[in-house]
Amino acid sequence: MLTDAEFDRVCLVLVRARNPSNIGAVARAMHDFGFRRLRVVNEFPVPFEAARSAVDASAVLADAVGYASVAEAVADCTLVVGTTAVGERDLQHRLLPAAEAAVRVREEVRRCVDADGGTARVALLFGSEKTGLSNEELSHCHWLLTIPMYEHEGLRHPSMNLGQAVAVCLYELVRDEAERGGISESNGRTFALADSAALERTTALLREVLEETEYTRRHAANSDPAQVRRLVRRMGLDVVDAPVWTGILRQVVWKLRGARRE
Amino acid sequence: MLTDAEFDRVCLVLVRARNPSNIGAVARAMHDFGFRRLRVVNEFPVPFEAARSAVDASAVLADAVGYASVAEAVADCTLVVGTTAVGERDLQHRLLPAAEAAVRVREEVRRCVDADGGTARVALLFGSEKTGLSNEELSHCHWLLTIPMYEHEGLRHPSMNLGQAVAVCLYELVRDEAERGGISESNGRTFALADSAALERTTALLREVLEETEYTRRHAANSDPAQVRRLVRRMGLDVVDAPVWTGILRQVVWKLRGARRE
Repeated sequence: MLTDAEFDRVCLVLVRARNPSNIGAVARAMHDFGFRRLRVVNEFPVPFEAARSAVDASAVLADAVGYASVAEAVADCTLVVGTTAVGERDLQHRLLPAAEAAVRVREEVRRCVDADGGTARVALLFGSEKTGLSNEELSHCHWLLTIPMYEHEGLRHPSMNLGQAVAVCLYELVRDEAERGGISESNGRTFALADSAALERTTALLREVLEETEYTRRHAANSDPAQVRRLVRRMGLDVVDAPVWTGILRQVVWKLRGARRE
Repeated sequence: MLTDAEFDRVCLVLVRARNPSNIGAVARAMHDFGFRRLRVVNEFPVPFEAARSAVDASAVLADAVGYASVAEAVADCTLVVGTTAVGERDLQHRLLPAAEAAVRVREEVRRCVDADGGTARVALLFGSEKTGLSNEELSHCHWLLTIPMYEHEGLRHPSMNLGQAVAVCLYELVRDEAERGGISESNGRTFALADSAALERTTALLREVLEETEYTRRHAANSDPAQVRRLVRRMGLDVVDAPVWTGILRQVVWKLRGARRE
């Protein structure tokens, strides 16, 4: 995840986005991932009002700035990255897949922050849904980023929905770099595993159940003690579930015995 | 990138998606990244017609299948992954960030393909934009995936636009693994996981046992149907152990009833 100072150095530049709901979708994706600086390049006044209905996007849209040209929109940026669907045109730029591009963008963002007092920024340019970025617009870019997509046989090269493309790019920028090395800590349900003593209690009770129900007699091949022990080990019980299972099995034994005594 | 056979083993399951344009956006993201199997769970007929206007999504939508319940929609799936915005509820599941989740999904997809002749699949569940997945719906899941988002101070936890969330998840699944630095996992026992239909049979029998033994009455707090379903999902049953447990539970039920009749 980026720091707040780093988030502040990233500009998203929408070039010739005509559809207010697309602008709203972009603003929402920015909000979701923590980005704030939206710049819009258009020859006509941008219909921000219509876009403001987008959920949670209001702060981003309120601060959005309009520019008359790409040159003006990226004037304070030290790195300008264009986005493109490959294959659309004869590319004159270096092209990086999103994941590799994100590493370089983060590097430059950090350099901007470290050069303290400066206001240098990094720009990500997105073209209109219909035509993408023109060659003139692309010429402002240092290099290009592309999102790897599936090439359907016989179909024209796919281009993504604008909001979705922005979401994927921003996700790449904030994705924890630690994950890249394959290590990450998960949260949610993360109880410690039950110890072997607890598992043995569960195993003993399960064996009692198998005896009491005559399962052992009927399915002798499944009832070897080591087999039952492994069966319980494969459950992967944690410290919360182990006593639940013990409770269930104890109740079964109690019921079987009580019933037999009646 | 996945192979065509692997793409075929991934199902996207939309639960209670009401807005046709959202369904269309999901179908378009699937098309862009090469996924084909869309399943929709709804209590009313799904307005696929209205969604068909989505660019490039027609093939995905034409093959979409409607189901009346989550259980039916995931019956042939050996791994069911729910998606959630963290912080919405008290999570009862293991929660993995999207990048780590994608590694595990791909592993299971490959296992499904390697078990040749099989039709086992992996399901990714997405809830309605408004409410996400309910606890009952989540209880069909083995674990949950979340897209890390920015936590805005003083604002409710963000939830992503449905089409954008799907795009990010599918992007993670197809992103070149080489970038990740190569993660692999191997173990000895490598039977395929049991599908959800088998897990539901185990769950139903366990609930019968809990009823018959009066466990339900004594430990009401542990006996909620969704809780019992999650307890069984956490066992991580494979195709060998699932019928063993079903056999054990059936024997317990048989004995309890037989004993009562005596």
